[in-house]
Amino acid sequence: MVRFVNVQNLGRWAADTGLEPLLRDLTTELEGHFQRWPLFDKTPRVGSHSQHGVIELMPTSDGITYGFKCVNGHPINSTRGLQTVTAFGALSDVDTGYPIMLSEMTLLTALRTAATSAMAAKVLAPVNATTMALIGSGAQSEFQALAFRANLGINTLRVFDVDPAAMAKFERNATALDFDVTLCGSVEEAITGAHVVTTCTADKKNATVLTDEMVTRACAAGGVTGLHINAIGGDCPGKTELDIELVKRGSVFVEYPEQTFIEGEIQTLPHDWPLTELWQVLTGDAVGRSSDDELTIFDSVGFAIEDFAALVFLNNRLDGTDYYDEIDLIAEPADPKDLFALLPVKQPATIS
Amino acid sequence: MVRFVNVQNLGRWAADTGLEPLLRDLTTELEGHFQRWPLFDKTPRVGSHSQHGVIELMPTSDGITYGFKCVNGHPINSTRGLQTVTAFGALSDVDTGYPIMLSEMTLLTALRTAATSAMAAKVLAPVNATTMALIGSGAQSEFQALAFRANLGINTLRVFDVDPAAMAKFERNATALDFDVTLCGSVEEAITGAHVVTTCTADKKNATVLTDEMVTRACAAGGVTGLHINAIGGDCPGKTELDIELVKRGSVFVEYPEQTFIEGEIQTLPHDWPLTELWQVLTGDAVGRSSDDELTIFDSVGFAIEDFAALVFLNNRLDGTDYYDEIDLIAEPADPKDLFALLPVKQPATIS
Repeated sequence: MVRFVNVQNLGRWAADTGLEPLLRDLTTELEGHFQRWPLFDKTPRVGSHSQHGVIELMPTSDGITYGFKCVNGHPINSTRGLQTVTAFGALSDVDTGYPIMLSEMTLLTALRTAATSAMAAKVLAPVNATTMALIGSGAQSEFQALAFRANLGINTLRVFDVDPAAMAKFERNATALDFDVTLCGSVEEAITGAHVVTTCTADKKNATVLTDEMVTRACAAGGVTGLHINAIGGDCPGKTELDIELVKRGSVFVEYPEQTFIEGEIQTLPHDWPLTELWQVLTGDAVGRSSDDELTIFDSVGFAIEDFAALVFLNNRLDGTDYYDEIDLIAEPADPKDLFALLPVKQPATIS
Repeated sequence: MVRFVNVQNLGRWAADTGLEPLLRDLTTELEGHFQRWPLFDKTPRVGSHSQHGVIELMPTSDGITYGFKCVNGHPINSTRGLQTVTAFGALSDVDTGYPIMLSEMTLLTALRTAATSAMAAKVLAPVNATTMALIGSGAQSEFQALAFRANLGINTLRVFDVDPAAMAKFERNATALDFDVTLCGSVEEAITGAHVVTTCTADKKNATVLTDEMVTRACAAGGVTGLHINAIGGDCPGKTELDIELVKRGSVFVEYPEQTFIEGEIQTLPHDWPLTELWQVLTGDAVGRSSDDELTIFDSVGFAIEDFAALVFLNNRLDGTDYYDEIDLIAEPADPKDLFALLPVKQPATIS
């Protein structure tokens, strides 16, 4: 039998664990996998693009365990009362090829995305950062806020979204979580005084959420010299969030260059553009933030190893719990060469 | 909620439908999708290879529906009491990106592989073929036999397997299904007198199940001039079944050349080797068997559109039945931007 974690059980597990402890431990789990990055079997995700979105498969393997996620991105969905991103995924045993666990991954992706952002910010954000601007307060925003507080102690949030209802929703949730929240009237107002800027917008187009001039003005007005931009919404060909001049001015950190050049903020830059792979910062092979006044940019598109880490983390915590069901996903005839025996076939009538 | 078809329900559905009617209708379904081949989003499957096998993802989309299969191939598994091939897969709605149905696909793959073989044989096998040789009588063999009887009326089977227990198992199953079965002592004995030869062996290596000389001798001894070889076991880099001289002598038909050159019998041939894509035979754009004494070879590796067809076929037949369960796979908050609301988080204690 294969373990199956549905939405209700994932939510129950996360809430019972406590979101901040969970996000702290998941960040630690992610760090461990990023530190052994070279041994993973890596490939850019395989996307099927359509008019309104994309459906993608994101596989990877560490030679012991194989994992994949099936995820969609449909920005139009929020206008239809549907999720922009939904996902599910599975882990399999590499030695036998048999699946081990199937899980909902809409909630799990929200958690791993936030934990990945925090993992990057731990090595890239200015020391003693206290304030984060959130540009976009949709489905991902509370998870980002919690991951940054759990891992970096950031409790002050300055928020802007083009949708007032989304801002009101965020304020309600974040206030209940004891965050210090300021709703702002513009992107520039939100980023003024922030040490970290997280962009998590969803339009499927080349948007310019942050321009170089705007960031320069806001940093000057806020008395901020060093800034870390956590750019997570530009994650599709033709879907970016940052003015390319801003990207060119910053030190850019990425997950997997082969994929980021297809999907990330750097998709319009030449493939020899200087980048640092985040895993190398975590192993100590590359430098993260190198000076107080540096502009660092995590051009995050989401990579399969993050989903793998989240699935492994979840699976390891299921033992002895009731957060999963067992499902009959694998045909297991007594004689492996007699698959046919699993079909309760009626014998043909004998003519007597 | 998403439909879920487990192994027991898939088996019940197949048996209740009747395997031969099912395989006949599934072949018709496959023909329909092969006839609209150009509109599918196609990519070679994405494999993660390891010492004992491979785990693969096979996605495709027709612009309305997206489907993928996760499948392993571990030849060593049969010595461990495990299935060589296990699989599961899903259909999603392209417009919303939401999954529609998740299904076991170990049994479904066995059915679609057999139906695909029969679809090819309908346009490639010698007219009035009555006898098939089965080289390899493992998990796929009964399905092949049933698909060929359902679609081509072939009822006489000559069987060889290196494993006597697998042959005895096949004889037991096939006799109960009223086939005329002859167990043979060698490959050459089995193919003598056969009009169709199906090779479905599982070794993960370059095997030579059929040589050019053996086939020539057997055809002469059996008085057979035209032959169709349905080669389904060579489906991995480094895993083939046919002597390359035999392949060179035949007219070769394939599913998707980009994938077959990686995995099929033709993996050692130059990429300009003359091939016919099977879908073109089905649309009438290419000729299938062109003469009675031709040697035709279907170099089948399995392609995503076949799994898509099987999943669509299954899903369409589920309406109004109890062959599926509904599972809570998709997070659906009332406000799509309030994913966080799905977590039953305890409010932080207020200090009073």
